[in-house]
Formats: sequence, C-alpha cells, structure tokens
Amino acid sequence: MPGTGTGRRADARRNYARILAVASGEVAEHGAGASLEQIARTAGVGSATVRRHFPTRRALLEAVSRERIEALGLRAHTLAAGADSRGALLEWLDEVVAYCVTARGLAAALSYDTAGEDPVRGNTCAAALEEAAAPLLRRAVQDGKVTPDATVADLITLIVGITLATEHRPEPATEANRLFHLAVTGLSPQN
Amino acid sequence: MPGTGTGRRADARRNYARILAVASGEVAEHGAGASLEQIARTAGVGSATVRRHFPTRRALLEAVSRERIEALGLRAHTLAAGADSRGALLEWLDEVVAYCVTARGLAAALSYDTAGEDPVRGNTCAAALEEAAAPLLRRAVQDGKVTPDATVADLITLIVGITLATEHRPEPATEANRLFHLAVTGLSPQN
Repeated sequence: MPGTGTGRRADARRNYARILAVASGEVAEHGAGASLEQIARTAGVGSATVRRHFPTRRALLEAVSRERIEALGLRAHTLAAGADSRGALLEWLDEVVAYCVTARGLAAALSYDTAGEDPVRGNTCAAALEEAAAPLLRRAVQDGKVTPDATVADLITLIVGITLATEHRPEPATEANRLFHLAVTGLSPQN
Repeated sequence: MPGTGTGRRADARRNYARILAVASGEVAEHGAGASLEQIARTAGVGSATVRRHFPTRRALLEAVSRERIEALGLRAHTLAAGADSRGALLEWLDEVVAYCVTARGLAAALSYDTAGEDPVRGNTCAAALEEAAAPLLRRAVQDGKVTPDATVADLITLIVGITLATEHRPEPATEANRLFHLAVTGLSPQN
C-alpha cells in the first residue's frame, strides 16, 4: 500500500536490496572507489536514496563485504556436506582467493581508519571467514589430507599476502590462484 | 696524506663505508624512517657529510639495499657450491625472508615514487635477486627436489606477500618464516 507506513517500509527494503546488489557488482568491478552516482543510476534511485541507506562510502563497502562474507559462510556449510574433505576445503579457499582479488580495494578501504593494523585483522571480515572455515579445515586434517600445522588464520594470511603481492599484475586473479596452488601443493614437499 | 687530493679521497671513501655500515644497522632496526642525525652521530661524522654522500633519504636507502642484495647474491654463489641443492635453495630463501622482514619499510620507501607498481617490481632489487637465485632453483629442479612449476619470481612474490601480510604481527620474522615453510612443505601436498 504505497503511501502508508507499511508500503514505505517495503519500498525502502526493496531499494536497499537493489542498491546493495548493484553496489556489489560495481565494487567487484571497480574496487572501493566505485562511483556512488553510477550505483544510484543503475539501481534506478536518486543519490539521496543511496545516501539515506548508506550515509558513508564505508557503510556501503561494509554492507557489500558483509554480504559476500555471509555468502562464503553459507558456501562453507554446503561444501562441508560433501564426501571429499580436501576438495571441499580447497574449493572454498579458491573462492576466498577470488573474493580477496576483487575485494582488494575494499579491504584497504575498510582498514584505512585502523592504520597500522595487520591486513588480516584490518579486514573486519576475517573473524567471520575463520569461523566459516574451521569445520572444513578440521575435517580435512582429521582425514590426513591437510597438514595439521596450518590454522585457518594461516590460510587466510597466505591468501591476503598473495593478493597484495599480485594486485598490480596484468592478471591478478589468475596469478593469485596459481601462487596459492603452488603453496597448497608445496614448493618442495619432500622431507 | 691528509690535505692532499689523494688523502681527501681516501677519507671520503672511509666515511662513505662507515656511514653505509651504520645506516644498514639503523635501517634494519628502525626501518626506512631511521634517523639521519643518529646515523651521522654513530658514524662520527657531521650531518653535512652524510648529506654530501647521500643527498636524499632515498639515495641512502638504495645504497643500503644494494649492499644487502649484493651480499645475498654472493651468498647464493657460495651456497650453489654445496651438495644439497634443495637445502641450498631453501637456506638462501630463508635469508631472503629475513631480509624482506627487516627491509619492509625499505621496500615501501623505494617504491614510493613508483606508485601503482607491484611490490616485487617496485623493489628495484628484485631483478638482482632473481638473477642470483636462478642457478640455485635450476639445480634443485634438475635434481627433482623442487617443483618445476615455480619460477624465482614466484618464490620472491610469495615471500613479499607473506612479509606484507605479517608485518604487523608481534613476531613478524617468526611468522613470515613459519608461513613460508608451510608453502614449501605444502598445505596439502597429495594429489
């Protein structure tokens, strides 16, 4: 019922969801500097509406990030049901690599006002990722398929590092994925 | 013969060597922001003498870095003579990890005016490191001790990434070393 309180709240929810979906795409494509005007235009709303839902760029970036982290959490849950514990962990980590590559600017933006913080901690989503991955890693270690010496934090730190070190390459996603797989297989596994 | 041209040149060479040795220690301890005044005091020369030899902070940092990279090059040459090709490569890479951890600020300083460059390329010394390591890696791969899928640039990129991702940890050197060894051994070597 447009015009009533209930109708306005439903409109607001729809706008919020639409802006967030558009923002996710724009941030994935252009990084943390994605144009708020472009987001408003593509979502078919005014800039004022974007600002009402997300008063700052940081608020928008955090919402985008939270959504993707939640999706990675659900994905971990789904993968944990499969028979191949190693495959499940590695598939999930590949998705984290892909996320980190597109979210690079995002991670930097989120840690701007926590200067001096470690890139993993600075990314406010690290704790959620760690929680999601813990059962996947535990199962793979119990199956003897993954070294018991690595923690989830280690895996994420490696991924963040690889992302930072490859971000200006011509093909960052490909390079980050390749380097992470070198680390999975081992540079020199024997001994 | 102090006072003559020859004597002055010998003095200048001694001063240069002393300032560089002191600067190496100070930069290793305090990073790229090391105090030039402290370097002058410890070297027993005036600030003007430091400035004559190293007109800018960047010039000083580059000289320090070049010296350490040259030392790593000589070290690679010595290690290449040993029987254990895998051990030689890994020992050398451990020294590069240790160098990167202390040289973090240095690498950042050296890449300040090459904004947007990849951390490995931004470090003007990457090419020299790659040249030094090539024979070590080639021999270890020929012996079947190291994966033929990794290049020297990959190894250095991994090290730079690990260094960047651990630099704000309480024990960066220990953490970087541990993570690099996880990558050497492999997180999940089978398959």
